[in-house]
Amino acid sequence: MKNKVHNFSAGPSILPNIVFEQASAAIKDFNNSGLSILEISHRSKDFIEVLEEARSISLDIASLNKDDYSCLFLQGGASLQFLMVAYNFLNKKAAYINTGSWSSLAIKEAKMFGDVSEIGSSADKNFNYIPNLSSINDDFDYVHITSNNTIFGTQFHSFPETTCPLFADMSSDIFSRNINFSKFDLIYAGAQKNLGPAGVTMVLIKNQLLDMVKRNVPSMLSYKVHIDKDSSYNTPPVFSIFSVLLNLRLIKSEGLESIEKRNSEKSKLIYDEIDRNKCFVGFSDINDRSHMNATFNLADGYDVEIFKSICSDNNISGINGHRSVGGFRASIYNALGIDSVITLINCMKEFESNYN
Amino acid sequence: MKNKVHNFSAGPSILPNIVFEQASAAIKDFNNSGLSILEISHRSKDFIEVLEEARSISLDIASLNKDDYSCLFLQGGASLQFLMVAYNFLNKKAAYINTGSWSSLAIKEAKMFGDVSEIGSSADKNFNYIPNLSSINDDFDYVHITSNNTIFGTQFHSFPETTCPLFADMSSDIFSRNINFSKFDLIYAGAQKNLGPAGVTMVLIKNQLLDMVKRNVPSMLSYKVHIDKDSSYNTPPVFSIFSVLLNLRLIKSEGLESIEKRNSEKSKLIYDEIDRNKCFVGFSDINDRSHMNATFNLADGYDVEIFKSICSDNNISGINGHRSVGGFRASIYNALGIDSVITLINCMKEFESNYN
Repeated sequence: MKNKVHNFSAGPSILPNIVFEQASAAIKDFNNSGLSILEISHRSKDFIEVLEEARSISLDIASLNKDDYSCLFLQGGASLQFLMVAYNFLNKKAAYINTGSWSSLAIKEAKMFGDVSEIGSSADKNFNYIPNLSSINDDFDYVHITSNNTIFGTQFHSFPETTCPLFADMSSDIFSRNINFSKFDLIYAGAQKNLGPAGVTMVLIKNQLLDMVKRNVPSMLSYKVHIDKDSSYNTPPVFSIFSVLLNLRLIKSEGLESIEKRNSEKSKLIYDEIDRNKCFVGFSDINDRSHMNATFNLADGYDVEIFKSICSDNNISGINGHRSVGGFRASIYNALGIDSVITLINCMKEFESNYN
Repeated sequence: MKNKVHNFSAGPSILPNIVFEQASAAIKDFNNSGLSILEISHRSKDFIEVLEEARSISLDIASLNKDDYSCLFLQGGASLQFLMVAYNFLNKKAAYINTGSWSSLAIKEAKMFGDVSEIGSSADKNFNYIPNLSSINDDFDYVHITSNNTIFGTQFHSFPETTCPLFADMSSDIFSRNINFSKFDLIYAGAQKNLGPAGVTMVLIKNQLLDMVKRNVPSMLSYKVHIDKDSSYNTPPVFSIFSVLLNLRLIKSEGLESIEKRNSEKSKLIYDEIDRNKCFVGFSDINDRSHMNATFNLADGYDVEIFKSICSDNNISGINGHRSVGGFRASIYNALGIDSVITLINCMKEFESNYN
């Protein structure tokens, strides 16, 4: 057995160990059926139960009313949602807040279908802050935000008030904190951060939104088609959904309040060390710092290879920053233990001691 | 340990046992990295090697020239390909041969983008045969076929000659036989029959086709985008691709000739029994019978519950026919052993003996 790897990867990323164990076991024998989870029919009673539990538990965790909202598990990641959102709902003009690479890509796809008003942007400072937009009351088809910016390490800590339908890409912070999900009319999240393995996307959608659709939408891009078919219009990604369910059960059992508390503790530990330790400089504005992705650089004159080598000696993995920011990024999703955070902080202290 | 289940499911479906074992092990520890395959970054060296091997070995198996063709692993199944094919390549008029439910859905999506000429159809006989179209030389953007019809149990045993680009949905018979893949300009296949678990789609595409694209295609629907980004434009379905690779290695090692021989033997055994046994009637025309999905009904006056009960007693699973055909369907993909086929035949014989 190797020493434990501390996985700070931005996504796909760490999941609870018990999810790995249960997923691994189900590949050998699912539900004592004598069949692997990889070979069961998506129309089998056993899998329909998995899918229905996953859909139902997601709405439970988000405290969303099951008469008003539907939960879907689709393929194609947030990238396909960028397109689906606009194809279905952009009739005249939509508002986007641009807080980084993912917002920018969402805007790019939306522009193929209608006018896009970029009502806020932090592009002027390489996206190191969240634009302040308390109230948006123009006549937009919808307002779109990216709740957490994986690459830049910023996060909305409060959400804009608006009379328009509010949409959010929550790929990198879904179910990491206790928010009022019912403020949103549509939420989507690629699974590969806090939910499960890559290959499935959760969509929480207010059913009433379907009344807005004016276009003739291709079947696979139509939320209505997927809702009408109970998220099984085509063969769903069986194993990814099953793995997500294993994790959702843990999230429901712990509760979002407790998860938020743990995540706040972890991020406070890291940011406190970044602010204390003269060798490091935080990237994002203090008020907008993400509790999921802590981005930081070395201060001028410190040797990056030495820090990398200390991290590597301590089995820290996935700590390099994205190329558009540089430096380092510690992704501290739900499943990352506080022991991993302490290990990283000890590396930062050890690095500092080299210069004393 | 339960008795072995004979899995005749139409898809998701049986895969080699060694794939289940290796996939299960990699969830606990991938490549001796101390990390699960479910938590590794898609940008990690280890996963890039997986993806590149999967792309390369697919072209090798199909004997396609790597300068002329690209292999992609996308999400969304054949259903998203129905849309992508037309969005990218249907400029004026395309020809479709309608051999069943999947062809019909492909035609439905294509009609949103241009004219569709249904140049052949077996709808008149509930799709129990393959229309005879030896040569197609009109000026179509492309000709589209479904090489094997999972629901109806028919299969193209030779392909139409055409001067137009030839496209095929090979979801249910890819790499089950030794054909001339270079006759085709675009091939797509949902993985969940002969390739791997649900959640990934293989695309083999002639690079030259990209010159045909006249439309402004959204990023996620653009073959060019996916080719330019080496099939990693967005986070790929890591685990599904890894599992497909495990299976592709076995396919390459056995070779398509040997696989075809095994599949022909299995299907001959079943069809011979269907034709010999007075209790059963084959569904599809003898010349067009699928070597992947054998469809059959009980002859008049025989008790379906008795046959189901015999199958169930012998651990046969997934044998019910699709609702649009009724009766029974034995899906006998690459990984299904001849022992399972013999078990089914013995059940058919046991059923017959009830009536002697």
